[in-house]
Amino acid sequence: MKKFINQVDDVLAESLTGFASAHANIVSLNLEPHFLTRRHKAENKVAIISGGGSGHEPLHGGYIGYGMLDAACPGHVFTSPSPDQMLAAAEAVHAGKGVLFIVKNYAGDVMNFEMAAEMLPFESATVLTSDDVAVENSTYTTGRRGVAGTVIVEKVVGSLAETGADLAACKALGDKVNSRTASMGVALTSCTVPAAGRPTFDIGDTELEMGVGIHGEPGRRREPMRNADAIVADMVAAILEDLKPAAGSEVLLLVNGFAATPLMELYLLYNSAAKLLQDKGLNVTRSLVGNYITALDMAGASITICLLDDEIRQHWDSPVHTAALRWQR
Amino acid sequence: MKKFINQVDDVLAESLTGFASAHANIVSLNLEPHFLTRRHKAENKVAIISGGGSGHEPLHGGYIGYGMLDAACPGHVFTSPSPDQMLAAAEAVHAGKGVLFIVKNYAGDVMNFEMAAEMLPFESATVLTSDDVAVENSTYTTGRRGVAGTVIVEKVVGSLAETGADLAACKALGDKVNSRTASMGVALTSCTVPAAGRPTFDIGDTELEMGVGIHGEPGRRREPMRNADAIVADMVAAILEDLKPAAGSEVLLLVNGFAATPLMELYLLYNSAAKLLQDKGLNVTRSLVGNYITALDMAGASITICLLDDEIRQHWDSPVHTAALRWQR
Repeated sequence: MKKFINQVDDVLAESLTGFASAHANIVSLNLEPHFLTRRHKAENKVAIISGGGSGHEPLHGGYIGYGMLDAACPGHVFTSPSPDQMLAAAEAVHAGKGVLFIVKNYAGDVMNFEMAAEMLPFESATVLTSDDVAVENSTYTTGRRGVAGTVIVEKVVGSLAETGADLAACKALGDKVNSRTASMGVALTSCTVPAAGRPTFDIGDTELEMGVGIHGEPGRRREPMRNADAIVADMVAAILEDLKPAAGSEVLLLVNGFAATPLMELYLLYNSAAKLLQDKGLNVTRSLVGNYITALDMAGASITICLLDDEIRQHWDSPVHTAALRWQR
Repeated sequence: MKKFINQVDDVLAESLTGFASAHANIVSLNLEPHFLTRRHKAENKVAIISGGGSGHEPLHGGYIGYGMLDAACPGHVFTSPSPDQMLAAAEAVHAGKGVLFIVKNYAGDVMNFEMAAEMLPFESATVLTSDDVAVENSTYTTGRRGVAGTVIVEKVVGSLAETGADLAACKALGDKVNSRTASMGVALTSCTVPAAGRPTFDIGDTELEMGVGIHGEPGRRREPMRNADAIVADMVAAILEDLKPAAGSEVLLLVNGFAATPLMELYLLYNSAAKLLQDKGLNVTRSLVGNYITALDMAGASITICLLDDEIRQHWDSPVHTAALRWQR
């Protein structure tokens, strides 16, 4: 294992400290317990909080800021954060209109966020993301996994919350986006958890893992490596089988890298997917390409499609100012 | 070699097409010869054009847009673009105030941009970037290589050009930024050029290449792998030996990933470097952390330090709207 680290036990704290220092104009870091908030507390809005195991950067800390999250709770690598982190984060950012938790559907995350919600002295609701169509249950989940679609949910709900919308409206929009979003991932290499020191799984030089999860957990099947168009065709087919979009539907296409795949290849995958969707009569009007939810040092990528409507498009386009996503169209 | 590609000969065109399609609101792609321009031609300003071999994405196409480049000429992977690309790009974006080429100091790039400048029917000037302190000459260069500092030069000069400044002023500011900027890189793995199909160099599981170039060309020396703080200390020492900043100097710190190194580790490196600079009495007031100039699929990172002054800071902070760098502070 070659990684840029010092002591394995210090990886998270040192990385978070670097993140908070590099983006001190946007975020603040609390160390005991670990949570990140906006530098300047927002008022008079639903507080949007997410969190989960670390190793998926820029998720979630990179999405804190105007138009997205108010706070994020990072667990240790691939480990759920604890309820005390969530409670402390909620205390710090609650602004009188309740707390919305956005939680990727992994058993540990769901349990701990539920526990926090029960102990919370404020009104709260939870949006569970479950966009991964690869498998129904996995090592980490009961039911479908939450993966890259989470970024879209956080962006869209975060935008609505800035308008002063109430908790029920934010929860409803989050659930709607999740129901209209589907993802599929593929790995070319394993990831290596620092504390383990060796690859999570073995994979040959001529193999790929179709439907891999963001922790390196198994997918649909081990398959022979093939060209990009063929891989994309299988990923897109699985997604469309789930979403069943009407002809002419307007979609957002997200091509996400798991960390070690170069941007040059991600844009090539985007090209392949966009052409395929066009051939199928879908209308790609919004795009995002890059490393937005990663799996430590895994080589691989996921494709996410979100069926847009006027409401989702408007909140996708609205201004956002975070470390990892920033625009003012 | 496992890569998301179709035919090796089509990698560049397919990736560029995907890039231009994903960012159609910012850039336009011309295919024969290959060059990228802003979607909407800017008027009444010096046209800023860069280019170089592909495989370093998001450099340079990702920096086209308001506040940075007017056009970029991508060569094949690790191969200089040709003068006809530069001439065609210049014809497309020249707006009556001359053309400034920003060129990384590699022999092929320098030669071809010089040839284009001679044939150009407009006034032109060139800023050569040469921020890499690792080696004086390399496989690809006569003199120091241009690496991640190029991004800073493009941002700062691009901002000045938007103000309507003339060609001489843009050239002078570019040269000034280059002279105040120094970089040092380290590789943990090789990169693999698609057409070659095998790693450019061999490196052991307990080794690193200190001072590596962005094409996988050799650096200062092969060294044993060690912890992040020790690696950073050597990189920063080499940079400061070159820049010799006065105590209390204000600096921009850029931690750049070569592609396969996760953001979690890049922020850890940033944390290490920022603390070290603070201990040495320097004042880190601006930061950038991420994959900004890459080396195909190499695992590794570079550190770049730019000595700020009021003029450079102002043009660094000014609004920018490109695919890879976007802010409105």
